[in-house]
Amino acid sequence: MKINPQRFLADLHTLRSFGASGVGKGVVRPAYTAVDIAARRWLASRMQEAGLEVRFDRLGNLFGIAGEKSLLIGSHSDSQPEGGWLDGALGVIAGLEIARASKEAGGPPISVVSFQDEEGRFGVLTGSDVWTGRLSMADADQQTDNEGQTLRAARQRMKEGTEKPVPTDLFTGFLEMHIEQGPTLDTTGEKIGVVTNIVGIRDMRITFTGRQNHAGTTPMHLRQDAFQALSAFNTRLNERFAEIVTPATVWTLGHVALHPNASSVVPGRVTFSMQWRDAEAARLLEMEQIIRQTCDEIAAERDVEVEMGPVMGIEPVAMDDRIQAALRAAAEDLAPQQWRDMPSGALHDAANVARVMPTGMLFVPSIGGISHAFDEDTDEADLTLGLEVLAQAAAAL
Amino acid sequence: MKINPQRFLADLHTLRSFGASGVGKGVVRPAYTAVDIAARRWLASRMQEAGLEVRFDRLGNLFGIAGEKSLLIGSHSDSQPEGGWLDGALGVIAGLEIARASKEAGGPPISVVSFQDEEGRFGVLTGSDVWTGRLSMADADQQTDNEGQTLRAARQRMKEGTEKPVPTDLFTGFLEMHIEQGPTLDTTGEKIGVVTNIVGIRDMRITFTGRQNHAGTTPMHLRQDAFQALSAFNTRLNERFAEIVTPATVWTLGHVALHPNASSVVPGRVTFSMQWRDAEAARLLEMEQIIRQTCDEIAAERDVEVEMGPVMGIEPVAMDDRIQAALRAAAEDLAPQQWRDMPSGALHDAANVARVMPTGMLFVPSIGGISHAFDEDTDEADLTLGLEVLAQAAAAL
Repeated sequence: MKINPQRFLADLHTLRSFGASGVGKGVVRPAYTAVDIAARRWLASRMQEAGLEVRFDRLGNLFGIAGEKSLLIGSHSDSQPEGGWLDGALGVIAGLEIARASKEAGGPPISVVSFQDEEGRFGVLTGSDVWTGRLSMADADQQTDNEGQTLRAARQRMKEGTEKPVPTDLFTGFLEMHIEQGPTLDTTGEKIGVVTNIVGIRDMRITFTGRQNHAGTTPMHLRQDAFQALSAFNTRLNERFAEIVTPATVWTLGHVALHPNASSVVPGRVTFSMQWRDAEAARLLEMEQIIRQTCDEIAAERDVEVEMGPVMGIEPVAMDDRIQAALRAAAEDLAPQQWRDMPSGALHDAANVARVMPTGMLFVPSIGGISHAFDEDTDEADLTLGLEVLAQAAAAL
Repeated sequence: MKINPQRFLADLHTLRSFGASGVGKGVVRPAYTAVDIAARRWLASRMQEAGLEVRFDRLGNLFGIAGEKSLLIGSHSDSQPEGGWLDGALGVIAGLEIARASKEAGGPPISVVSFQDEEGRFGVLTGSDVWTGRLSMADADQQTDNEGQTLRAARQRMKEGTEKPVPTDLFTGFLEMHIEQGPTLDTTGEKIGVVTNIVGIRDMRITFTGRQNHAGTTPMHLRQDAFQALSAFNTRLNERFAEIVTPATVWTLGHVALHPNASSVVPGRVTFSMQWRDAEAARLLEMEQIIRQTCDEIAAERDVEVEMGPVMGIEPVAMDDRIQAALRAAAEDLAPQQWRDMPSGALHDAANVARVMPTGMLFVPSIGGISHAFDEDTDEADLTLGLEVLAQAAAAL
């Protein structure tokens, strides 16, 4: 098959116009927002033009199906609240271009997917969680975003959802092309990463509830200050994690909602996100136990209540050996000595799909290692080279 | 003069209906919101019915003027984002009732005031800051709330503002009745607090700017995490303050805005409020120096930028001796041995007004010491007793 780089890049730029931030090439296209839905409609029209059968499932996952027993290629088209133009979008448009090119060349049937809510507005990888059966639709519907909106309410904004499921056994395997989102390839000057495995991730929401009161008349020793509880928790957690982690382990406290969040009021409540990632399931569990123990200690010491939400997450997972071999062969052919095997520190839909079919991932460099930010970017020559490697591997499979 | 407790309590409950929270007796009536403006219009109508000359100044401070050289009584009718029904409202309605009762009895002229934005949506005590000349109207107009709205834009929602000033020398003195907002009177069972002095307060907004990045692919040692900078700052500040404060010193980190505030993103920026209070100006300054030094250290250690906003505040101030004596005499007459002298740990408009005319304050108990919260409350018998003491002192002055 012969891919068309101009058509591929033009579609990638058009997708960027849905929710363009106006700052660099950034996008603001969280799952189920008006611009996310509009982008999915446009993608559906491009799939239809390519001769694929368009199908939305109930959650809003969008499939372009080439026939029974096809290879599936894709990623997601939703973004972080402040996202880059390539995260997810690259893998979807790569799938679309390879599906078109294969059809034009009379090659094997290639299907395309854009999963919904990969960025975890309502969970972790919500769309592929439900599609692969890791999470029931009923449980997913109960999940809420940071503003307390349920997924059930959000997905009702999409008219396209159908009750007719898209069975996973329609597909023989899954390929996901993605930007690395880290500094490795950009630092070494290599062009392609063949992903060997994806780290596991855990995510939970924690609330400390103290006592809201006047910031002038409440003596320090009588305060039950939720922010102080959070700060003490964070400090102690960092000390304890330092004793058990590897250099590749990461943890993040990225969301904080303080209540009532006024400068003259002792904070009565704080809800925050706690996320941690590691390649070993045992270490993920050990970290969870430390989090729970530290929460309980801080609550007792500071006379606040603690509420720990459910732990959501994905297990560490290896990529399929045969697909890895095909990606390596194509990389060595098109970018000799400019590729490497590497783990993925970021979570991807491929981590879910790998449990139901043979799955592989390919990385291209991220300039400066920057992602989840408006200035995320990759040289367009690197994007096209990655697409060519992926297409050659897909043809070989 | 003879005050009318039923009329006083009825007006107090009517004022509570503007912005009623539906939770206990709480109110949501921040400065310049639609309900705050509606409450001021209703107060103006009650002042007019009482035969007072109604005047709004440019900022939205509302005066009911009884004539030249009158005693001014009042407080504020705006509330915290989650406020109690008595904070501010009590002092305004007390002034209204005493002005009415004195007029009915042919007593001395009593004027009433409801200052605007005492709760510091746009500053510290914005309305009385400007009225007493501590802050220029031009500077006040530049001040922004936590959402970035300017005071200039907010006050344009009030049609009542007039360019005609209300000179401070219309008034011979100022009395402010207020709930204590702390636990002292409620714990001792006493009914009246005669305020001797008001502590000083300092308030500043601080921003740490790091580097927003992906929470899975950014190694811990390469992060410039704004939340971690905030937590480290808070921990170190607490250690340092512990060495110089008195048991009456307080400090609060009550507002935190994390950016982009998403669980899968290393936070790139945090803006937070830092407020501290003490009876001594020298200690307030020493605390400010420690805050600045700690900010700079954390910024250097963690490779983040720090931006410290202007320090706003009020100096510690003593109440007028003659007014204190009149309040003590009335308290001893109506609540023998059930009153005490006490400082105010909370800031009040009286702290501003004391710089331009003789000023005094009277406290009534707060049940459980709770304030700046929906469940703030005081026994109605205590409210009425406080009003009677204030009226007797006003008549004596």
